[in-house]
Amino acid sequence: MLAEVITVGDELLLGQTVDTNSAWMGEVLASHGIAVHRITSISDQANQIVAALDEARMRVDLILMTGGLGPTRDDITKHALTDYFGMELRMNEDVLKGISEWFQGRGLPMLPVNEAQALLPDGCSVLHNPRGTAMGMWFDAAQDGRPQVVVSMPGVPYEMKGLVEEEVLPRIISKWKLPTRYSRTVLTQGIGESYLSEIVHDWEEGLVQRGVSIAYLPAPGQVRVRLSAVSKREGDARQSVDAAMDEFLNLAGDHVVAQADISVAEVLVEMLAQRGETLSIAESCTGGAMAASVTSVPGSSAVFEGAVVAYANAVKIDMLGVDPVCIKQDGAVSESVVSAMADGVRTRMGTTYALATSGIAGPGGGTPDKPVGTIWIALSTPGGTEARCLKFGSHRGRNVQRTVLECLAWLLRKVRAV
Amino acid sequence: MLAEVITVGDELLLGQTVDTNSAWMGEVLASHGIAVHRITSISDQANQIVAALDEARMRVDLILMTGGLGPTRDDITKHALTDYFGMELRMNEDVLKGISEWFQGRGLPMLPVNEAQALLPDGCSVLHNPRGTAMGMWFDAAQDGRPQVVVSMPGVPYEMKGLVEEEVLPRIISKWKLPTRYSRTVLTQGIGESYLSEIVHDWEEGLVQRGVSIAYLPAPGQVRVRLSAVSKREGDARQSVDAAMDEFLNLAGDHVVAQADISVAEVLVEMLAQRGETLSIAESCTGGAMAASVTSVPGSSAVFEGAVVAYANAVKIDMLGVDPVCIKQDGAVSESVVSAMADGVRTRMGTTYALATSGIAGPGGGTPDKPVGTIWIALSTPGGTEARCLKFGSHRGRNVQRTVLECLAWLLRKVRAV
Repeated sequence: MLAEVITVGDELLLGQTVDTNSAWMGEVLASHGIAVHRITSISDQANQIVAALDEARMRVDLILMTGGLGPTRDDITKHALTDYFGMELRMNEDVLKGISEWFQGRGLPMLPVNEAQALLPDGCSVLHNPRGTAMGMWFDAAQDGRPQVVVSMPGVPYEMKGLVEEEVLPRIISKWKLPTRYSRTVLTQGIGESYLSEIVHDWEEGLVQRGVSIAYLPAPGQVRVRLSAVSKREGDARQSVDAAMDEFLNLAGDHVVAQADISVAEVLVEMLAQRGETLSIAESCTGGAMAASVTSVPGSSAVFEGAVVAYANAVKIDMLGVDPVCIKQDGAVSESVVSAMADGVRTRMGTTYALATSGIAGPGGGTPDKPVGTIWIALSTPGGTEARCLKFGSHRGRNVQRTVLECLAWLLRKVRAV
Repeated sequence: MLAEVITVGDELLLGQTVDTNSAWMGEVLASHGIAVHRITSISDQANQIVAALDEARMRVDLILMTGGLGPTRDDITKHALTDYFGMELRMNEDVLKGISEWFQGRGLPMLPVNEAQALLPDGCSVLHNPRGTAMGMWFDAAQDGRPQVVVSMPGVPYEMKGLVEEEVLPRIISKWKLPTRYSRTVLTQGIGESYLSEIVHDWEEGLVQRGVSIAYLPAPGQVRVRLSAVSKREGDARQSVDAAMDEFLNLAGDHVVAQADISVAEVLVEMLAQRGETLSIAESCTGGAMAASVTSVPGSSAVFEGAVVAYANAVKIDMLGVDPVCIKQDGAVSESVVSAMADGVRTRMGTTYALATSGIAGPGGGTPDKPVGTIWIALSTPGGTEARCLKFGSHRGRNVQRTVLECLAWLLRKVRAV
């Protein structure tokens, strides 16, 4: 089965917005055995939408569109599709009620342009979007007896994702009676894609014959690995994938930090919660990003007490009890200071574990002795305190992201080993 | 003048890589007055490349392609283009010398597959790529007397960017005589796209006749607005845009937080630095995200002292001096507690201003009295402390993001008004 993605919006062509929706949809569709044949980005113009649709309909079974459903006049996708399919806009009272409740819930007045979002093409199936005021639309576009579907969704990523998961995928699976697909994803950390594929090379060679496919999904500092198989009977795919995954876990060993498709922070929060243990954090160069990563996990309040972002040295001294002499002698980016930060926050917040960071995130601030990307991290536990020095590049955001990941994975391995 | 972008790579369609090249090229081209008409992503297959090229050549003057130029066998763009233009691959001795020096400089052995990267189509202009081993290629594809160019570049972003800036743009500018494009972008906050367009409705109606186009670029809690115009003489476009922007700024008033295309955090850091003032933060429900937002700005250490992420009530009491009686009587999510948090961190870190948050980020933890999305924020200044209650939805990440933005913009307006 083939699909195409069409993303609509002048902002995509002007480069004001990077299209992340297409990659997300490509991955989700691929995991269900649907190949994306082409991705097309076009402007907010009816003739462009019509041309792109006509072309895509000659090639594939399913067309997913995002964008151009907002309330302003440059958003014309809904009108273009209504005309294209020879339909009429009609007020959908259920949707109107939902939108008006959406505004009431936020204590905001509903404007005429928002009311107009409940005007929907009379021949489409409305896909309910509880996260916003633009509904999704499912058009049955069958031609010459061949099933074909065009779906239009808002371009806001989290609204689109909710619609795909809750409305679009279930309909696709039931309409095309897709074969059962079973897949498992694990999270590895601290090892590059090429090094990882080297370790599992011989094993990977034999996968195809077993009907199992492997995908490496890299992100800074981590690689997700997905094994999947397709079968007529549900049990068969599962059995093949489970057997292959056991072998992969053996080969990858400690590099695997989570046996599911979740973040390191999620694994950590879950594990600490199970053990009834707690965490505090002292951050200098990561500037709050580590606390933000942990607290992005719902339920993290059960294990996370708090953090001190000690950007200024005075804060390291006053709020964490770091010895000013250490800072003077060794500098703020040093083993002694980062260890004292971890110990200080663990003592003051009374937690089982504490993590700390102090480094030069960049792009400025480096010295010959401590170049940009030099980052000290420390882990304080009931059994003692350890510190490590990381050496990254000069990209501020990436340095922060990788340091946070390195710290959380370090604690994760430590807790597991206890 | 019209252009299209074609990005080649299975990884784009499988969602393993987000295509950031297209947006970058779109912005660069737009700033030179070249409109990107369409962006197309296709797989590493010769027939796909030929089809996409044939279609694009019917529509536009310039086609920029990236990807598929690597040394491995799945990279077939060079071969496809050589066949497409009826050329032959020939060893380019200059390029071979460059590649061999590239490997020598890194102390790596040159493999036959790398040597083969010096085989280039005999009829193209080679665009020198000093950052890697895949050269760019410039094909003169004029048809029916109409000038047309196809450019192929490697997909590695920093190699592509270097080629565009150093080789491609200068050639485009000299080949076509381009009109001047002028645009200005401002950042608005705290007003939805629909309210904003309502406010400026009548004014917006008249823009087209003046040759000015407007684009709304929404993100959670903020909308960037871009006005642009094209003209033969540089001054004309600038004059039209500047006049229209003055009117827009009048209409949008206080909703505009930055008269440039930068983030609220960047404006704030810059403004506080100019004034020699400082900031500290106390975060409960935002969990470190506000500190992370501020410290994501290079140079923020000049104005940001630090933050206390007080997730647990004990931390609010011990590290911020919040009265436990307040927490007991009013609850942690209350005006009294969030105000005490702001005052506490401002006093302890000795800063000019302090911001604080306490709320129910969700998805769980709500009560009938304080439903999910109820968030108190406070701003402590030398002139006193104020608190406000925000009401958002149930999406944890979005609530955090919007609260952070609301707080930073609040402080920004306060500082401006002083």
